[in-house]
Amino acid sequence: MVETLHEPARRAHGLRIDGARLWASLMALACIGATPKGGVCRLALTDADRAGRDLVTGWAREMGLAVTVDAIGNVFMRRTGRNPALPPVMAGSHIDTQPTGGKFDGNYGVLAALEVLRTLDDHRIETEAPLEAVFWTNEEGSRFVPVMMGSGVFAGAVPLAHAYAAADLEGRAVRAELERIGYLGAEVPGHHPVGAYFEAHIEQGPVLEDAGVTIGAVTGVLGIRWYDCTVTGMEAHAGPTPMALRRDALQVATRLMQEVVAIAHRHGADRDGQGGQGGQGRGTVGQVLVHPNSRNVIPGRVRFSIDLRNASDTLCEAMDADLRAQAARLAGDSGLAVELQPVSTYPAQPFDSDCIAAVERAAARLSHSCRRIVSGAGHDAVYLARLAPTGMIFVPCKDGISHNEIEDARPEHLAAGCDVLLQVMLERAGLAS
Amino acid sequence: MVETLHEPARRAHGLRIDGARLWASLMALACIGATPKGGVCRLALTDADRAGRDLVTGWAREMGLAVTVDAIGNVFMRRTGRNPALPPVMAGSHIDTQPTGGKFDGNYGVLAALEVLRTLDDHRIETEAPLEAVFWTNEEGSRFVPVMMGSGVFAGAVPLAHAYAAADLEGRAVRAELERIGYLGAEVPGHHPVGAYFEAHIEQGPVLEDAGVTIGAVTGVLGIRWYDCTVTGMEAHAGPTPMALRRDALQVATRLMQEVVAIAHRHGADRDGQGGQGGQGRGTVGQVLVHPNSRNVIPGRVRFSIDLRNASDTLCEAMDADLRAQAARLAGDSGLAVELQPVSTYPAQPFDSDCIAAVERAAARLSHSCRRIVSGAGHDAVYLARLAPTGMIFVPCKDGISHNEIEDARPEHLAAGCDVLLQVMLERAGLAS
Repeated sequence: MVETLHEPARRAHGLRIDGARLWASLMALACIGATPKGGVCRLALTDADRAGRDLVTGWAREMGLAVTVDAIGNVFMRRTGRNPALPPVMAGSHIDTQPTGGKFDGNYGVLAALEVLRTLDDHRIETEAPLEAVFWTNEEGSRFVPVMMGSGVFAGAVPLAHAYAAADLEGRAVRAELERIGYLGAEVPGHHPVGAYFEAHIEQGPVLEDAGVTIGAVTGVLGIRWYDCTVTGMEAHAGPTPMALRRDALQVATRLMQEVVAIAHRHGADRDGQGGQGGQGRGTVGQVLVHPNSRNVIPGRVRFSIDLRNASDTLCEAMDADLRAQAARLAGDSGLAVELQPVSTYPAQPFDSDCIAAVERAAARLSHSCRRIVSGAGHDAVYLARLAPTGMIFVPCKDGISHNEIEDARPEHLAAGCDVLLQVMLERAGLAS
Repeated sequence: MVETLHEPARRAHGLRIDGARLWASLMALACIGATPKGGVCRLALTDADRAGRDLVTGWAREMGLAVTVDAIGNVFMRRTGRNPALPPVMAGSHIDTQPTGGKFDGNYGVLAALEVLRTLDDHRIETEAPLEAVFWTNEEGSRFVPVMMGSGVFAGAVPLAHAYAAADLEGRAVRAELERIGYLGAEVPGHHPVGAYFEAHIEQGPVLEDAGVTIGAVTGVLGIRWYDCTVTGMEAHAGPTPMALRRDALQVATRLMQEVVAIAHRHGADRDGQGGQGGQGRGTVGQVLVHPNSRNVIPGRVRFSIDLRNASDTLCEAMDADLRAQAARLAGDSGLAVELQPVSTYPAQPFDSDCIAAVERAAARLSHSCRRIVSGAGHDAVYLARLAPTGMIFVPCKDGISHNEIEDARPEHLAAGCDVLLQVMLERAGLAS
């Protein structure tokens, strides 16, 4: 009896996904919307997206999976369990891409989930709870705002009517486009149980590659604060205006631009990427507009963006307070107007500690190097974490580059991440003894 | 005999120009190319420029002045002297404007010179040397490059063929446009003697207004060094890239932008605008281009302009060496590429010490407050100073603003500057006893 209890676990631990099949499916999907530079352009709810969806759901139906589509176009591909009443253990991501996107962002999470189900079919393994591979509508937000639309509607964070009304630059709205491509499903979004959710994804950053580590056990997603800052001085000619009589907006703006980075360092940037309890401060000025932007005119006005991120809302609030204090100090020192306009706030989302630990255990069993890591970018998992225990598995991508046609990842890393996904899904779903 | 020697000088010292007539001529010229916002658009060699030239030369001919045009369109309006063989004492400026220019920049210097000749006519005063009022072609450089074209050709600094070939955005070249508007003269540029040259001008800066001083005795024009600087790092996503793994081009660029101002202070900015022997350091970053200039992308490349000025070429060279050292230091500290590309070099041009002193003496006699001042911007006087003793007279302009439709100056300041011009021209030309 002791023997029979342990036998399924031993069998499960020995299972490996088929890395070549996973790679082949990624390359097949990447042909739809392929760009000349080796990337993919498959914007949400376009004909290319329909073709991608048809390919993936076609594979699912060949495998005998039950395919369900909800009213925002999220697609659930279900492999039943010994106990169909249990909430399914779900894994997935998205298959829409940026206009100049790559082959792996999103697609990997969906096809890794499908590969897990294929591997279980190969070995005729039954789980207690059902398993579902899923793809969420319009994660990228390139064509329709907001980003992470499908998972946001599913989690109740984005009203369905709001999502339906979102239109692209040509005025075509989401509901009409869902209907046109045949993915306006009947199921009410969110009326679908979730036992747990896992998402495998390329890191989209340089941490794992830099550290030479294969698996990232993602501890959560950083909170984000976006601002627009405007410094107003006095436009004047560079020649005839002595230094003492200038009100140079750029000279004050550049001081605050440097403070943005200093603030990140003051709030834990030194523990970068470790995903521990400490801060994960990040500060970026990405956009600068100088007025009048002429070689021999002292700038009268400078507008620039500020992007602050950290691992918890408390830390984000501390960075916000620090930024406001620095802006006020520079305004006081210079006598120039420094206006700080909040643009967006995204809360931090820690993942489930059991899910994080499960990823670490699986990586250890499989002898893959593993470290904790935070995600600096948003993923569908952020919304799923509001509904069910959630975890993410990161694998390295070349030079940390994504949202780019040259996005690349190594087949052995993708296979390793998929093997980890198999283990954590099995552990959550339980093996039918 | 002693009595008769001093009588002309006493008479001259008591002369005053007609401020109302000067103002009326400025307003009449400003009607040609007037803009709805109260400025003037009279680009070089356009129909408006022809109309302005015709108005001014018409006034000159009514006064009986001899009008000569040279092959680059410079116009000399001559009042003969007791001794016509003496080189003329010349005063003037330009009447072309910026696209959104004002009523005073350039025009004041030309019409002040004409007002001086009118005043001498009123009082039937004869000078030993001839006097000439002059306007130079295309000082602004808005339509045709280079700036200060007419005086540059006159001084031999710009080859005539080079100036003739300069074309505007529609491909119309200078020679054809000179011919079209009827100002392609026969005289070889520069084959025209100059005994001395004076130019009255609004300051185009805030120094006189700030100090509450009416007359600026201009000691010279600052030398200028222009550069383009490019900092190259690595473009990366703001979210997933920890601080320690960034190569943020903007963070290095903003340090150098602050150094540009620090360099100005290290090279004499503290003696701003005084026109003494010390430094007159000025440093400006006017133009910034960030790539890719997106809110959530760490800038991979930043290109920006640098404008350094100082009172002597030696000081400009010291600033250049300082800038190169700072760029090298920042490149070394950051590991990023910092490229410094020289764009233009304009040498400093000190004015004649006797001419500067003459302006100061005249202001004192007339009881106008006066201080020495440098010109941060170029003027036709820069080229004339290569040919003959040269001086400039600055008067305040409102808020230091020029090259702008709201450019403004007070009638009493314009009259004061014109009175000083009268005195220095008479002193140089000598009264016919």
